[in-house]
Amino acid sequence: MNWGMIDRYAKSLIREAGHKIRVSFFNTIDIESKADANDLVTNIDRGIEQFFIKRIRKDFPDHKIFGEEGFGDQIDSLDGIIWMLDPIDGTMNFIHQKRNFAISLGIYMDGMGILGYIYDVMNDDFYHAMKGEGAYYNDERLPALESTPLELAIIGVNASWVAPNRRIENEPIAKMVQACRGTRSYGSAAIELAYVASGRIDAYMSLRLSPWDIAGGMVIAQEVGAIATNMKGEKPHLLGQDTFIVAKPKLHDELLTNYIQLK
Amino acid sequence: MNWGMIDRYAKSLIREAGHKIRVSFFNTIDIESKADANDLVTNIDRGIEQFFIKRIRKDFPDHKIFGEEGFGDQIDSLDGIIWMLDPIDGTMNFIHQKRNFAISLGIYMDGMGILGYIYDVMNDDFYHAMKGEGAYYNDERLPALESTPLELAIIGVNASWVAPNRRIENEPIAKMVQACRGTRSYGSAAIELAYVASGRIDAYMSLRLSPWDIAGGMVIAQEVGAIATNMKGEKPHLLGQDTFIVAKPKLHDELLTNYIQLK
Repeated sequence: MNWGMIDRYAKSLIREAGHKIRVSFFNTIDIESKADANDLVTNIDRGIEQFFIKRIRKDFPDHKIFGEEGFGDQIDSLDGIIWMLDPIDGTMNFIHQKRNFAISLGIYMDGMGILGYIYDVMNDDFYHAMKGEGAYYNDERLPALESTPLELAIIGVNASWVAPNRRIENEPIAKMVQACRGTRSYGSAAIELAYVASGRIDAYMSLRLSPWDIAGGMVIAQEVGAIATNMKGEKPHLLGQDTFIVAKPKLHDELLTNYIQLK
Repeated sequence: MNWGMIDRYAKSLIREAGHKIRVSFFNTIDIESKADANDLVTNIDRGIEQFFIKRIRKDFPDHKIFGEEGFGDQIDSLDGIIWMLDPIDGTMNFIHQKRNFAISLGIYMDGMGILGYIYDVMNDDFYHAMKGEGAYYNDERLPALESTPLELAIIGVNASWVAPNRRIENEPIAKMVQACRGTRSYGSAAIELAYVASGRIDAYMSLRLSPWDIAGGMVIAQEVGAIATNMKGEKPHLLGQDTFIVAKPKLHDELLTNYIQLK
């Protein structure tokens, strides 16, 4: 497999999609709710996913595509080459802010992440990695992450997991919030993963993410030594939703052991 | 008073300070803790405040300066013209992320905000307003805010206020988190105020802010119709720390009435 060629192709496709998204702001954005009132989708998410699929099907007819908006393939196994795509990660930010969203893409072979991309479109920040070849922020190689003790750590965690909820015990999470240096929440799993990989935050967690939310970022984060698992400490499920935590090495252990209790 | 002249002067000074901050990343940043371990200050915060003070004292010798790092005047009254300055709002982001911080400046006369500026330095995003003359994001006039119901609102609130704490009852805040569309936390009061003013989030609250954190943003937010008060619904205290909430008009009432219970 010529991964270098696929890498160049994917980068060019993502930049072209980014341009289409920026242009889309000249037109009306149609918003719909999906599963629940806050699970939003727009005509732009759908259009961008279809743009990717049309191109990939034409140029890589034996690859499969697993995309958030469902125009790709029915995926029941991780065999072969799968493009895991979120055309707009952070749709709520896309709608409310017209910024702080990203194109997220991971290219996996037989379940192993080979190529990862996160493109923060409005900031023109491009994060990418190839397995074994290091991770990059724009043209700059990202250094290996050093460990950070909890009391100096900034953690990406949404306030909804500190409030009582049906997925995780919130009292230990509240204790974690009190014990760390600070918390942030940006509303895009891909951007928060990119922030962990580039050392801007030290950990990120969420209780319900889909494969396309994390597939690209996991390749990038792992290249700089971050640990990415579900909240049982296992490899995240890549065929359906799962919990997720990514952090610097020792911090990952500490958070998982001392603060995370799934319901 | 020639406020137009002062406005042009302040804009130019802020842009020059922004350039100095960007250049500072070529050098080592020295970090110290202030009141507590997470209240950080760097040589850059101090240097930038001194840069402002030197210029303002020379060019406006009868104005006073109230700055986060304490190189300005001792301020016991709001009489006269006071420049309320945070040279780097979001110091923790400045240190950990080298982005997502802002220069925040409000120019007040006898306690009334006349000019307000927030400069998100690394994104080169400049928000400014003159009382009665409208608010601007870069060169674009910001439209008046329309009201948003709580269930569609995105609220800037840090997870630390959802965890048990000594300032506010956290259970009603947890209910607010569950009732709104989503929450965000960016780690800079000035940037979150700018986000409210530009309609990217619908409300922002914090339990302990200083005058220079909010002085510039309040002028900007009020020009687009946002309501900014302390959590008792009064004008925020501008001589010392206070609680703070800024939101779209009806939402401000609803949050204050139904979800905020100070200890």
